[in-house]
Amino acid sequence: MELAKTIKYVRELVKAARSDGKKIGFVPTMGALHIGHVSLIDRAVNECDFVVVSIYVNPTQFGLSEDFEKYPRTLDADLKICEKAGTDVVFAPADNEMYEYENITWDDTEKLTEPLCGQSRPGHFKGVTTICAKLFNIVTPDIAYFGQKDAQQSVVIKKMVDDLDMPLQITTCPTLREPDGLALSSRNKYLDSQQRKDAALIYESLQIAAEAIAHGTKEPQTIIDQMRTTLSRIKNADIEYVSVVNADNLRYLDKIAGKALIALAVKIGDTRLIDNILVDAGE
Amino acid sequence: MELAKTIKYVRELVKAARSDGKKIGFVPTMGALHIGHVSLIDRAVNECDFVVVSIYVNPTQFGLSEDFEKYPRTLDADLKICEKAGTDVVFAPADNEMYEYENITWDDTEKLTEPLCGQSRPGHFKGVTTICAKLFNIVTPDIAYFGQKDAQQSVVIKKMVDDLDMPLQITTCPTLREPDGLALSSRNKYLDSQQRKDAALIYESLQIAAEAIAHGTKEPQTIIDQMRTTLSRIKNADIEYVSVVNADNLRYLDKIAGKALIALAVKIGDTRLIDNILVDAGE
Repeated sequence: MELAKTIKYVRELVKAARSDGKKIGFVPTMGALHIGHVSLIDRAVNECDFVVVSIYVNPTQFGLSEDFEKYPRTLDADLKICEKAGTDVVFAPADNEMYEYENITWDDTEKLTEPLCGQSRPGHFKGVTTICAKLFNIVTPDIAYFGQKDAQQSVVIKKMVDDLDMPLQITTCPTLREPDGLALSSRNKYLDSQQRKDAALIYESLQIAAEAIAHGTKEPQTIIDQMRTTLSRIKNADIEYVSVVNADNLRYLDKIAGKALIALAVKIGDTRLIDNILVDAGE
Repeated sequence: MELAKTIKYVRELVKAARSDGKKIGFVPTMGALHIGHVSLIDRAVNECDFVVVSIYVNPTQFGLSEDFEKYPRTLDADLKICEKAGTDVVFAPADNEMYEYENITWDDTEKLTEPLCGQSRPGHFKGVTTICAKLFNIVTPDIAYFGQKDAQQSVVIKKMVDDLDMPLQITTCPTLREPDGLALSSRNKYLDSQQRKDAALIYESLQIAAEAIAHGTKEPQTIIDQMRTTLSRIKNADIEYVSVVNADNLRYLDKIAGKALIALAVKIGDTRLIDNILVDAGE
């Protein structure tokens, strides 16, 4: 496995792989890798001939009061995980490699970035789409892999790729969970033992929603109320949103039908966690 | 020469050329080709092994009250010009090929798009950067060629390519002029004979500015006043702006020094014309 710290070097490595006719897979991450990330790398290794993992905590997608500074940075452990998973290149650039001068060009996907996390994290998705555009232009992958846990991110990136005719495919992979249902996240490390225990209620609330919908509930507000009741059992929790939206265009649903995304964000103490499930509610 | 009307087909042609190890040159145009465009194609043919010219009147860079509808469309003549100049592929997509669904992703280069034409054409450069990002992603050229006549466009595109790490180089080529100095433009066709005659005053005003700067004038306002006096001799002219800016960052200059761009836009009747010159004013 190669470690590339510069754009120039990762480009050279990808160029050589491509001239050997290899299919390039790409897993963009912010490091602090867990088995959720590993499942993305596994998928890339299975489907592609040459796999690049980027590890970069992108400052432009964090708000001023967010956890950019304390976001876990565990490069040595991450490199071992990448190597074991069969990664060919880890691209781990320094900040001044990615934003060398004043960056004034932004990729922005309107409308899709307004609901859900966009509402509580203004500017977040502009940072996400911009860094992904940069990374796609640097790595030039055939396929890039994202996790379903960040459902809105995946929808937004797919729309950006489509709208701007970027020459790659986006694959979204299932959320991996702890035995009690908590979605794997680098931010789970922030939780103390009581918070960690309470955090299982997040997935419990989503399962209650799925069950209600399977039993014919069509009113989003009924679902949201049930979920909020469950989530209110978490100590010191601040529910940011609980929403039921169309899975493709993220528009709020008046009535649950077709493919719906049930998504939520909740702050437990200082730790902001998100989760979601996809349901097919039929006609 | 091949005519590609779909993204799929132009991609196939470029892919085949690249797998033969060819260097890809790209000249994006809105058609209505004149020898200014031909000079860009010539340069591309000289420097590259495979040259793609796009012909597409991009709706998203025209304002509501602008000339999108009446913009000249001369595809048959354009194709002959391209073939004669040694073009390998003309990419002439239909609107629904470029914006098939609702386009909600935009590339925007802030700050650089505020002065000059950005002031009188809000949204114009957002349309330009977005269509260029799309075309670059479709054609994947090694070098794309732009004309110095659209000076701000060239600066904005260069910054976008730099900020988003797009894997291509931008080359800006000199403005071509009629014998009386009028910069070649597809919009010159709109001028009647009196307007055409008057339009020579545009370049005359720029030459007066260059001469004054060569003789040591350092005050932008002095230059601007002299130019406006010259331009006011054009009948029914509406001077949109006359500006002296830093050639790299387009910031208005308090004092003329270094590489300066003298740029103007003037409406003669209904026809909006732009022109500019670069001067090096030393320290």
